[in-house]
Order: sequence, then structure tokens, then C-alpha cells
Amino acid sequence: MMVQQERAARTRQSLMRAAAEAFAEDGFVPTTLSTISRRAGVSNGALHFHFENKHDLARAVEAAAADAVREITRAAEQRQDSALQRLIDATHALMSSLDEDAVVRAGFELVGTAPRRGTDGAGTDLRGEWQRWIDAVLHTAKDNGELAEGVSAAEASTAVVAATVGFEVLGVKDPKWVSQRTLSQYWELMLPRLAAPEQLAALVPHGPTAPVPGPASRR
Amino acid sequence: MMVQQERAARTRQSLMRAAAEAFAEDGFVPTTLSTISRRAGVSNGALHFHFENKHDLARAVEAAAADAVREITRAAEQRQDSALQRLIDATHALMSSLDEDAVVRAGFELVGTAPRRGTDGAGTDLRGEWQRWIDAVLHTAKDNGELAEGVSAAEASTAVVAATVGFEVLGVKDPKWVSQRTLSQYWELMLPRLAAPEQLAALVPHGPTAPVPGPASRR
Repeated sequence: MMVQQERAARTRQSLMRAAAEAFAEDGFVPTTLSTISRRAGVSNGALHFHFENKHDLARAVEAAAADAVREITRAAEQRQDSALQRLIDATHALMSSLDEDAVVRAGFELVGTAPRRGTDGAGTDLRGEWQRWIDAVLHTAKDNGELAEGVSAAEASTAVVAATVGFEVLGVKDPKWVSQRTLSQYWELMLPRLAAPEQLAALVPHGPTAPVPGPASRR
Repeated sequence: MMVQQERAARTRQSLMRAAAEAFAEDGFVPTTLSTISRRAGVSNGALHFHFENKHDLARAVEAAAADAVREITRAAEQRQDSALQRLIDATHALMSSLDEDAVVRAGFELVGTAPRRGTDGAGTDLRGEWQRWIDAVLHTAKDNGELAEGVSAAEASTAVVAATVGFEVLGVKDPKWVSQRTLSQYWELMLPRLAAPEQLAALVPHGPTAPVPGPASRR
């Protein structure tokens, strides 16, 4: 019984991954269910056991991406760090998830494109959720006196939300934009402007994992 | 003869606008040529006189958006201002064009979405062109000593490119993101970090037109 459940869960995962890859390569509308089942290496019957139709699959991809984003922000919330460090760490976790996981990438792309936009009223608003979390954590940073004098939480939030959405969108074509190196450089540039001077030394722009050496450090 | 040519140009314009609006609302793939001609208030015959098929129309929309972007950067290049001010002014011109012109908005959306992505080898690379221009103008700023000490042209370019792509994408759903107010606040936040201190006083974050009073200034 457990073995069967595990196998079913694995099939469901491969179908979602195959769908995410096909949507990214060919677009949502031209992708057929047979393309997806062939790509996942399962029968059409097995696909229909798990998903009724293509919209059902797209909803599952969006929901999995939303879960990943919620997992990232929840993990960041649980750390004892400053609000700014939690923000930095969460952006690194999101970019690395966008870099590595076709389902998360497709989730963000799907909610942004017209064929899926607004198809279900209760649909996931992935960018909206991310945006509200950034806004909340920057308001906490402001309340804690972590932001530089004269910098409002709203201004900082606008800049950081726009840049992270830009990284996400540009990263679809070129993974350089969602690399740890690009994001670390972004925070190195931004932190001296955003953070209160006495906070600055404690902040780690490259996030929780060790920095990957890039071209510049090899020079 | 002139009257006929003018009428033909106007019909072409209304077809491109109708196509841009339909692509934005329903997506590229589900939109039919009859929807577009009905929306433009012209006959199917008139549509076919101007455009062979939907891809032809999409190419025209992308080309018009690319022309608009080139016009914006060319106008910015011709001004006598500092490189940083030309950058600020060009971002304002682009955002106002995205805010007002459905064709420019659709041009950016089309090149980003999978059904049109890479359909023609010689296709317009709108975001790429914008990115290269920002990169070049920030390298000029660096060479002119306009950037703050320790800030590289590449880092500044990464941050500004990502934010402007983010504003563009978020502006599709909510025009607040491409408003003069949002962009002025962005530059007010960024300039003290990007610009050399002796340059800062001369820079105008709200661009070439007078600032529009927003909620904050009414408080």
C-alpha cells in the first residue's frame, strides 16, 4: 500500500515536472496532454488518473510553486536574524528555487501570462504573495530601526519587489539572472543605502550558503 | 492619394492597437483574426490587405514597440545632460509609454511569452536592447566619474535593468507600477547610492516633466 502511494506521488511529480517544462518551451496553449504524458514517460491513462485536464495540471503546478514560496518565507520567518537578513536569505532561497526547479519557474510564468491569467477566481497570486511578504518584512525592519534614516519601508519594498520580479522574469531566458552571484552583488549595492549604518556590518549579502566563486574573484 | 495613404496608415494603426489589446486580455494563441478586425471596426478583407496572418500582426506590434524604445533612447542620447540624468529620463519615457500605449505594452509581453518566443530568428529582442542601452549609459556615467566611489557600472546596470523589467511586468496588471510617482521614488532611493556626491544635487529623480502630485504630497 505504501509502495503504491509512493509510486503514485512520484508519477504525479513527474507529470507536473513534464508539464512545467513543456509550458516553458512551447507555451501553455499549444501543449497537449499527450506531449506531457510522453515526456513524463507515463501512459495517457495514468495522466488522466491524476489530472482531469490541462488546466487542472496548470493549477497543480501553480499550487506547488505557491507552496515553495510559502515554505521559503516561513523558513525565513523562523530564523532569529534581523528582518533585513531574513529578507536577504528569502530572496536567495527563491532565486535558487527558480534556478533549480522547473515547476517553480513555470508557476511564476503561468500566473503572469494571459491564457491562464484569471482563469480561476481562487487562483494563486504568486507575485502578489511574494510582494506582500517583502512589504511586511520591510515594515518590521523599519519598526526595529534597521532601515537607514529617511528610507521608508514602502520605497524599499517597491525597489526590492521590482528587482526580484525582474530577476525572475529575466532568469527564464538566462539563468545568470537568478544566480547567487547576481543576487549577492545586488544586495552589496543596495544594503549601504537601505540599512542603518550600525546594522550594515552584521548583514551577509550572499545569504545563508557560502558564496560561489565567480569570474570576478578569479581575476 | 495622400488621403488614401493616410487612411491606410490609420487602419494599420487601429489593427495593431486592437491586436495588442486582444493579446493582453485573452493571450496570443486564443485570439482570432476576426476578433481583431471586429475590435478595430474594419472588415476581414481590410485586415488581410495589411497583415497576412496573426504572426505577421504580432511582428508588427513587436516592431512598433522596438521603434518606440529606440526613439526613447535616441532622444535621451541627444540631450546635453549627464549620463545618469539621461538614464533617469529614458526610464520615465519608457514607463509612460508602457502606461499609455497598449502596443508598447503588448510588444514587451509578446517577446517574453513562450508561444511567440523565438518564432522568428530575426525577432526583436526588446528587453535585450533596453538592457544593452542601460549598460552602455552606465559605463559612460562611470567613465565620466558620475558614479559613487566603489559602485561599478555592471552592478548598477544589473539593479536598474532588473527593476525596470519588474516595473514593466508588474505594470501589466496594475498601472501603479509604471506611474511617474513610483519611478520617481525609485530614483530618489537609488541616486544617493549610485551617484557621486557632487553630482547628486543636479539630478532630477522625477525626469523631464513636472512631478504629478500623489497621495503622499497631499498628506
